Amino acid sequence: MDTKVLKQEVEDWLQSYFQNKGSYNKKIYDAMAYSITVGGKRIRPVLCLLIYNIYESDYNKAMPVAAALEMIHTYSLIHDDLPCMDNDDLRRGKPTNHKVFGEGLAVLAGDGLLNEAMSILMEYSLHNSKEALKASALIAEAAGSEGMIGGQVVDILSEGKSISKEQLFYMHSKKTGALIKAAILSGAILGKAPQGDIDKFNEFGEKLGLAFQIKDDILDVIGDTNTLGKKTKSDDSNNKTTFVTTFGLESCKEMCENLTEECIKLLESIDKNTKELKELTLFLLRRDY
Amino acid sequence: MDTKVLKQEVEDWLQSYFQNKGSYNKKIYDAMAYSITVGGKRIRPVLCLLIYNIYESDYNKAMPVAAALEMIHTYSLIHDDLPCMDNDDLRRGKPTNHKVFGEGLAVLAGDGLLNEAMSILMEYSLHNSKEALKASALIAEAAGSEGMIGGQVVDILSEGKSISKEQLFYMHSKKTGALIKAAILSGAILGKAPQGDIDKFNEFGEKLGLAFQIKDDILDVIGDTNTLGKKTKSDDSNNKTTFVTTFGLESCKEMCENLTEECIKLLESIDKNTKELKELTLFLLRRDY
Repeated sequence: MDTKVLKQEVEDWLQSYFQNKGSYNKKIYDAMAYSITVGGKRIRPVLCLLIYNIYESDYNKAMPVAAALEMIHTYSLIHDDLPCMDNDDLRRGKPTNHKVFGEGLAVLAGDGLLNEAMSILMEYSLHNSKEALKASALIAEAAGSEGMIGGQVVDILSEGKSISKEQLFYMHSKKTGALIKAAILSGAILGKAPQGDIDKFNEFGEKLGLAFQIKDDILDVIGDTNTLGKKTKSDDSNNKTTFVTTFGLESCKEMCENLTEECIKLLESIDKNTKELKELTLFLLRRDY
Repeated sequence: MDTKVLKQEVEDWLQSYFQNKGSYNKKIYDAMAYSITVGGKRIRPVLCLLIYNIYESDYNKAMPVAAALEMIHTYSLIHDDLPCMDNDDLRRGKPTNHKVFGEGLAVLAGDGLLNEAMSILMEYSLHNSKEALKASALIAEAAGSEGMIGGQVVDILSEGKSISKEQLFYMHSKKTGALIKAAILSGAILGKAPQGDIDKFNEFGEKLGLAFQIKDDILDVIGDTNTLGKKTKSDDSNNKTTFVTTFGLESCKEMCENLTEECIKLLESIDKNTKELKELTLFLLRRDY
C-alpha cells in the first residue's frame, strides 16, 4: 500500500476520533486533538501499518494500534515541549500545546493521550487475537521507563553536561529508538509474521531508530527552521551532547549512510514484497526535514 | 483478610518493585518510588484486594492489579501538585515530588507511573484469564479523559469560578469516584463474582466514591494540617466550588452519613462475608484525616 495513502488514512482516523467527544471535559479533547492533528511525518503508525500490510491485506484492522502509537509519540512531544523540560514555543511550525492551552492543560492533554492510547490498546486486545495483547504489551514497555521515558530522563539529566558515547547511544536508543522499534515489531506481530522475519525486523528497527536520530542531529545543525517547522541549532544553544558534537558532521553522515544500507539489506533478505518499506526507509534517512 | 495486613502487603510489594531498577535512568525510579512509598491510605489497592478476597482466597494473585491502581492514583497526585496545577508543596506530610526532584522529573515520574501501571496490567493480562484484561480495560477507562483526567480538567477550568451542582457532581464522580469504583469493580471481576454482585458493587462504588469526596471537602474545612498531612482550607484559598460551599457543612455531613448507610446496606445484601469491607467503608467515611 502506498505510504501517502496510509499517512492520510491515519490522519483521517485520528481527526475523526476526537470529534464530538466530551461534555464538561470537552477542552481536554480540544487540546489533545490540537497536537495530534497539527501534522508530522506519522512515521510510527505508517511503519506499523506498512509492515502489517506485508502479511495481511486489510491494513485497516491494525489502525487502532497504529493510532495509539501516534498518540504516545504526540503525548511525549507535548510534555517535552513544556517550560520545565525543553521549553519550546514551536512544534511542527505551530505554537506548542502549552502556548495555546496553558501549562496545566498541556500536562493533562499529554496524560490524556498516553492514557487514551493504552485504553485503545486494551480494548483492541479484548476483541482480537492474543497477538494484539502481545503487541500492546511491547508498545507499553517501549513507551515506559525502560524505553522512551527513560531516554528522556537521561536527556534532561545530561543537559549542560558532557556525556559518554555509551550514554549517548543509550539515551537515543531509548528516547527515539524504542517506540520506532515497537511500531515496526507491533506491525509484524499483529500480521503474524514468522519468527525469522520478526528477528530481522527487530534488527531493522534498531538500526532505523538509530539512523533516524543521527539524521535528526545532522538536520539540527544543517537544516533551517522553515523547512523543519521547529527551532534549529537548539541542541547547540541547550549545550547538548549529540551525535554531531561527539563524532563530527562528516562521520555522522557516513554512519547514517551505512545504517541506511544495512536497513535496506535486511529488508531485501525478507522473502516478501518490501518495496514500499524500502522507499520509506530511504526517505526517512535521506530527508532534509 | 485484615485490612491492615493488606495495606502492609501492598506497601511491601510497591517498595520492592522499584528496588534495583534502572541504570542511567535510575533517577526516574527514585522519583517514582519517592511518591509511591511516602504513605497514604492505599484505599484503591486495598478495596481491590479485599473484594477479590471475598471470592478467591489467594489475594496475592491480584496484587499486580492492586499495585497498578495505586501507581495511577500516585501519578495523578504528582501532576496535580505541580506549580502549573494546584501548586502544592506538601503531600502526605512530605515535600511534593517537584519540590524534591524538580518539575521536569516530576512530570516524567508521573508519566512513568501511569505507563508502568499500564505495562503491569498488560503483562498481567497476558498471563491470566480474560477477566484480567476486562478489569485492566475498565481501569484504563476510569483513569482517562472520561474518568479521572476529565474530572481534573473540569477542576482546573472551574478554578475561581462558580460552577453548577451538576458540574460539581460530574467533576468529582470523575476525578475521585471513577478510579475508586474501578478498584472495587476490578476486584469483583478478577474474583469472578456473579453478575448480580458486580451490579451491587457498581452501585456501592458510585456511592462510596461520592461520599469519600464529600468527606474530603468536609475535612478540608474542619480538619487540621498536622492530622491530614496536607494544607487545609486550600479549596477556600483557591476559591473553589466544593460540596461544602454548595450545600453547607451540615448538609454535607448528613449526605455523607446517608451515603454511608446506603453503602453498608448494599454490602449486607451481598450473600458473602463482607465484614472487613464494611469496616473499611465505615472507617473511610467517618475518618478525621
